[in-house]
Amino acid sequence: MSNLDLFARQPAEWLRSSGPESEIVISSRLRLARNVRGFPFLQKLTAEQHDEIVDLMEDTVQKTDVLKDATYFRYRDLTDLDRQFLVERHLISREHAGEKGERAVSITRNEVVSLMVLEEDHLRLQAFQSGFNLQEAWRIVGMIDDSLQKSVEFSFNPTLGYLTSCPTNVGTGLRASCMLHLPSLVLTKQVHKVLQALSKLNLAARGLYGEGTQATGNFFQFSNQMTLGQKEEEIIENLAAVIRQVVEHEKEARQYLRQKRKGKFEDQIWRAFGALKSARAISSSEATQLLSLVQLGVLMELLDPGLTRQDLNTLFLLIQPAHLQKISDKTLNSSDRDIARADLIRQHLSKVQL
Amino acid sequence: MSNLDLFARQPAEWLRSSGPESEIVISSRLRLARNVRGFPFLQKLTAEQHDEIVDLMEDTVQKTDVLKDATYFRYRDLTDLDRQFLVERHLISREHAGEKGERAVSITRNEVVSLMVLEEDHLRLQAFQSGFNLQEAWRIVGMIDDSLQKSVEFSFNPTLGYLTSCPTNVGTGLRASCMLHLPSLVLTKQVHKVLQALSKLNLAARGLYGEGTQATGNFFQFSNQMTLGQKEEEIIENLAAVIRQVVEHEKEARQYLRQKRKGKFEDQIWRAFGALKSARAISSSEATQLLSLVQLGVLMELLDPGLTRQDLNTLFLLIQPAHLQKISDKTLNSSDRDIARADLIRQHLSKVQL
Repeated sequence: MSNLDLFARQPAEWLRSSGPESEIVISSRLRLARNVRGFPFLQKLTAEQHDEIVDLMEDTVQKTDVLKDATYFRYRDLTDLDRQFLVERHLISREHAGEKGERAVSITRNEVVSLMVLEEDHLRLQAFQSGFNLQEAWRIVGMIDDSLQKSVEFSFNPTLGYLTSCPTNVGTGLRASCMLHLPSLVLTKQVHKVLQALSKLNLAARGLYGEGTQATGNFFQFSNQMTLGQKEEEIIENLAAVIRQVVEHEKEARQYLRQKRKGKFEDQIWRAFGALKSARAISSSEATQLLSLVQLGVLMELLDPGLTRQDLNTLFLLIQPAHLQKISDKTLNSSDRDIARADLIRQHLSKVQL
Repeated sequence: MSNLDLFARQPAEWLRSSGPESEIVISSRLRLARNVRGFPFLQKLTAEQHDEIVDLMEDTVQKTDVLKDATYFRYRDLTDLDRQFLVERHLISREHAGEKGERAVSITRNEVVSLMVLEEDHLRLQAFQSGFNLQEAWRIVGMIDDSLQKSVEFSFNPTLGYLTSCPTNVGTGLRASCMLHLPSLVLTKQVHKVLQALSKLNLAARGLYGEGTQATGNFFQFSNQMTLGQKEEEIIENLAAVIRQVVEHEKEARQYLRQKRKGKFEDQIWRAFGALKSARAISSSEATQLLSLVQLGVLMELLDPGLTRQDLNTLFLLIQPAHLQKISDKTLNSSDRDIARADLIRQHLSKVQL
């Protein structure tokens, strides 16, 4: 899969570590759910209609000027490992990767845009931006949505808005989300309070890999729960307002750690670094957790691991199971991966001595 | 205390890492309990008798040729820190250090011999040897005991033998003990079985700092419980026979770790080293535990910390509270010590990079 290998050689968009508030807001994502008029929803599609949509979408993408550098991957051409690789890069969902029948995904070269074909809806169009930049992500998906509609008609009801397979997406079909790195709120045991407040505001908090995943390595993905009855701009602004507050809390917690718990905190950061530099076998969840602390240490200028922030961020991705196997170019079982992961991390951190 | 400072600049005898089986048997110790004829036991001494014995022992030691390079420390001349320092070097007992009234200890320059005056008995004479060498320790205490008896008469009963303050010491007044480092038996969870077997043989297992202390850093001190009804040589040979078996068990456990659990084991060793090289604050018990693993790694040639075995062993001592304060030449509270300890360890391990 030469096109996939191309991705493996670049940092994922969501870990570029640039853009506003990128010390806390790792990435912003906008997603639109769309269904093609004249076809039933996914569950009711016949086998022919299924194939018809996969073909139709390939045609549509090719006709869409702004997607001309995108690659259209049909799932029959992807191995399980390839799909897991795309999940790890946040380009397809875990659910989509696990589907049996034919599916497809179109991905732009810079990985900013992906269109999942036949996920829960016929089309799931998403755009990523590094940092806190929902507006730009919204501009991009909006533009692509408009372009697509020049060649395909989506199911739309004048009263309800866009029609979707699951009622929670009816209306705008929009989900806005931000991935936040909140190590200080976790260390100061305040993150629970934040999550409780969010759920009252009808916002969801998820882990690194979306729906149904646990928060790992102090990463939290916040998103709107409802799309009906609100304009796109309102949904985005509501989420953004909350994110701004969470960002402030995390900043305060970082200050608190620096001022009030300096000794203990520096010890934690350095020990995390020491463990990464010395382990001979390490799980992805432990490594993610330790890298999170090292990243915090770098942001707070307590430690210089000799890597750019972007390189350090990229390590979060490289240590995931499919990435590890792509890099070492062989199938590895779980305990082999733990060893390969430890080797890879030591190699990346070898520039700096303790 | 210039004489004490002199000790601080040399490795303690029990950590020289030389002598038979010194990869497992850290040190061997022989102790004799003696009381001066014509005086009641400690609890019944008057204040004058108390002082008389301290003076008498100073005279006696000075007259004893084999002790001519020994220093006679009176407790009134020692600070609390000095006494704790001597406890850490195993030259006096914790109980002796904690006494209120006047006490004394005579220590030879090489720290092989110490004579505690007015511990539980009027005199507690002990000799250390590095490694598994009870015979040599016995030869030394025997020789000193004979020399002392040229100028002082000890309480002795032809039927019972030497009389002592506590009945468990009556007879020979001898306690033989070996300090063993058993990290592999601990890692393979077999040490409990060994300790159970020992208690059936009427042998005691104690921690690094003797009676009432917990095993720390995988160090165990094994000794005879009874002294009555057995000859000195029997007591020593009984203990030695058991120690030989425990040594074999530890060797087998090291082989097992090397052959069957190599990956996991190397990971543990390296992580211990990483933690020592990176911590900014560390307790003495954690540091002792981690140093124990690093030492095992060195013995098994998995890791080269750039230190001789003796230097590494000496670290066990230097990180103790009183040693730390002697080295930094100031009083440190517990959390200051944790920081100073971490600094000291990093400094000692700085020759090698991870």
